[in-house]
Amino acid sequence: MMLVNKIRVKESRLKKDQCDLARFGREENGGLMRPALSAVDREARRWFKDRMREAGLHVREDEAANLIGRLNPTQGPSDEPCVATGSHIDAVPHGGKFDGALGICAGLEVIRAIQESGIPIPCPIELLVFTDEEGGHFAGTFGSRAMFNLLSEGEIHRSKSDGQPSLAEDLRRAGKDPKLISQAVRSPAEFRAFLELHIEQGPLLDTMGVPVGIVEGIVGIDRYFIQVKGRPGHAGTIPMHLRDDALVKAARIITAVNDALLAAGSDIVGTIGEMKVYPGAFNIIPGIVDMYLDLRSRNESARLSMRNILQKIIDSVENARIELILSKPGVTMNPTIMQAIMESCEEQGTPFQRIFSGAGHDAMTFATLGIPTGMIFIPCLEGKSHCPEEDIHFEDAAVGTQILADTMMRIAASSL
Amino acid sequence: MMLVNKIRVKESRLKKDQCDLARFGREENGGLMRPALSAVDREARRWFKDRMREAGLHVREDEAANLIGRLNPTQGPSDEPCVATGSHIDAVPHGGKFDGALGICAGLEVIRAIQESGIPIPCPIELLVFTDEEGGHFAGTFGSRAMFNLLSEGEIHRSKSDGQPSLAEDLRRAGKDPKLISQAVRSPAEFRAFLELHIEQGPLLDTMGVPVGIVEGIVGIDRYFIQVKGRPGHAGTIPMHLRDDALVKAARIITAVNDALLAAGSDIVGTIGEMKVYPGAFNIIPGIVDMYLDLRSRNESARLSMRNILQKIIDSVENARIELILSKPGVTMNPTIMQAIMESCEEQGTPFQRIFSGAGHDAMTFATLGIPTGMIFIPCLEGKSHCPEEDIHFEDAAVGTQILADTMMRIAASSL
Repeated sequence: MMLVNKIRVKESRLKKDQCDLARFGREENGGLMRPALSAVDREARRWFKDRMREAGLHVREDEAANLIGRLNPTQGPSDEPCVATGSHIDAVPHGGKFDGALGICAGLEVIRAIQESGIPIPCPIELLVFTDEEGGHFAGTFGSRAMFNLLSEGEIHRSKSDGQPSLAEDLRRAGKDPKLISQAVRSPAEFRAFLELHIEQGPLLDTMGVPVGIVEGIVGIDRYFIQVKGRPGHAGTIPMHLRDDALVKAARIITAVNDALLAAGSDIVGTIGEMKVYPGAFNIIPGIVDMYLDLRSRNESARLSMRNILQKIIDSVENARIELILSKPGVTMNPTIMQAIMESCEEQGTPFQRIFSGAGHDAMTFATLGIPTGMIFIPCLEGKSHCPEEDIHFEDAAVGTQILADTMMRIAASSL
Repeated sequence: MMLVNKIRVKESRLKKDQCDLARFGREENGGLMRPALSAVDREARRWFKDRMREAGLHVREDEAANLIGRLNPTQGPSDEPCVATGSHIDAVPHGGKFDGALGICAGLEVIRAIQESGIPIPCPIELLVFTDEEGGHFAGTFGSRAMFNLLSEGEIHRSKSDGQPSLAEDLRRAGKDPKLISQAVRSPAEFRAFLELHIEQGPLLDTMGVPVGIVEGIVGIDRYFIQVKGRPGHAGTIPMHLRDDALVKAARIITAVNDALLAAGSDIVGTIGEMKVYPGAFNIIPGIVDMYLDLRSRNESARLSMRNILQKIIDSVENARIELILSKPGVTMNPTIMQAIMESCEEQGTPFQRIFSGAGHDAMTFATLGIPTGMIFIPCLEGKSHCPEEDIHFEDAAVGTQILADTMMRIAASSL
């Protein structure tokens, strides 16, 4: 693989992009506030689109607001299946600078390094920037699911809470027509492979001091909407024993769900991370509580059997209901892609570790469709993620990006 | 009291004002969204200020954004203590059209009826519109407390949750200088009496079919801020038994507080009506939960002894704290004022009922300072309040407003 050895990614350039991008939505404490399709997210996307063009990519934006940058092959037909990489630009509220952002900056650096190497490009190469991976609007991994017609009925018109815009509204704000969302749909056959570089979001690689994780699989994820209704009323005039307080009932559900998950053992985790109380004034008895439960397991039967347990908990509370709004079975990464990443590591003398992902990613969408998919993790310090303290060593990021570049060219040149 | 009999309030005018005012912030389901100093609240205030001027009042706005309309006496000095009435214009989120608004519309109609009667005005008369009675920004009854220097240290710079403006910010938006807030302070000696007309917000008068309630007292109110801290982190990568989830701990507090209040008997009620989960994304373990607890009792010792119980509950949960942010002892209404209201009712042949208020009001602030204070309640249908279904019979409102007018003139002509 002499070809591969000519490609050289540059840490300084990667670091500059990453730091420049982190200005969009930066908070004083080092955190990031860049919800999908917010004003600052749209600004960040414009900035990144310019960088993509500078790197020589043909850039378009689909009706789901995904950015698609493409390099056509040096010779041969330009409508062959592509080798793609990508990640997302949006962040969780008060999250970190690297989750998602590092993956698209790495992809950009790969494109530059390939261009500079002068190596003929054997097939189309794409850099993808997905919309709303984090589920700021509704269920998460929106952009990649829109790309493969995996959105659920009416999903883009829902929003997580009163007063928050739906995806349809925010797409309109970004100049898109939500009615044309199906124009974003592509065929899986357009992709020969998909690779995503991401921070680990757990402590394993950092603890081991290993710069590259080769992902073997991603946990299955179920997301539920839970709504509890009570009888709102004035906080001063209704005796305690005559109340039907939605928050008091919701507290019972939170406790019961947590107890059930603790009892289920180490195979499954579940989190209620988002909750709204309506009408939400301290002198009104809560009438409605909305909650979102995120359930993950690499053990499919553990995740599925939790459904019955949850339904029993909900049934024990008057006027409560539960709705499964997203269900993604766990996926395994493609063995050939994993092998290619491993060979790239060996060639570069880069230590690596096989690893499982407890976090969901756009790569899941590709893997679900049978597109050969792989993920490269790099360590994040102390495993901290989704918080302002999220941090990395840029040396690791550069090493991971080099492996990403080598692997993409290795696959492009192969018969996969 | 032949003078009094010449004053005639008009139901049609009262109803028109009330309906016109309800346009500001109206929601499709009949509810009202008019938080204090929001754009729509400021619009409503401008509209009401014009109506006050039309009715012949000299109108000024103090640095707490309270509206103060004044009629000077027909003869004699204009700096004598005044007889005042008033209420608030802001509403709880998704609340009703009558809470607060009816009191200021009634006051406006009283002013008009007095002017039309041609009866000489024996002392200054004021109509007051208070800012943020509902506590949209922080602790409630802001305007009346600002008027008598009863704000707590730094209160105007606090806000109830991330991203929500403080009173200082919203006052600035309304053209005020928060640094000059102390210029709003007046002496209790400027008031000979204060009267507030309000809907009952409970079912008693409606059930009895009685149009007027003469308030004997108002419950004591304690408001607490409770904060629970945990360790935020990625929802997919941290096993259940290693988590410190702020929401799971908050649920234990909600349940324990509710159990303690139920056990305390019928003398006390308590409500957690407002709660925020941070950072608030479904893939992040909650790191902080903020809650507001509102506690009310007409029994002072029940309210005070709950403080220890609450502290014990909070102490049993790691990284939880509780802060008393507002404490208003219960108040009794002035017997002379109550007598004057009763005599007005008897003269008009209006049935009345003595009643206790489980809701707090700006009138509390006046009563606390020893200003002779009274309240007139009118029925609200089925006792529903702080919700879109809040409704009244306008005949009752007109009857109550007539009693308010008669009582104000009765007191103005008396030696109180």
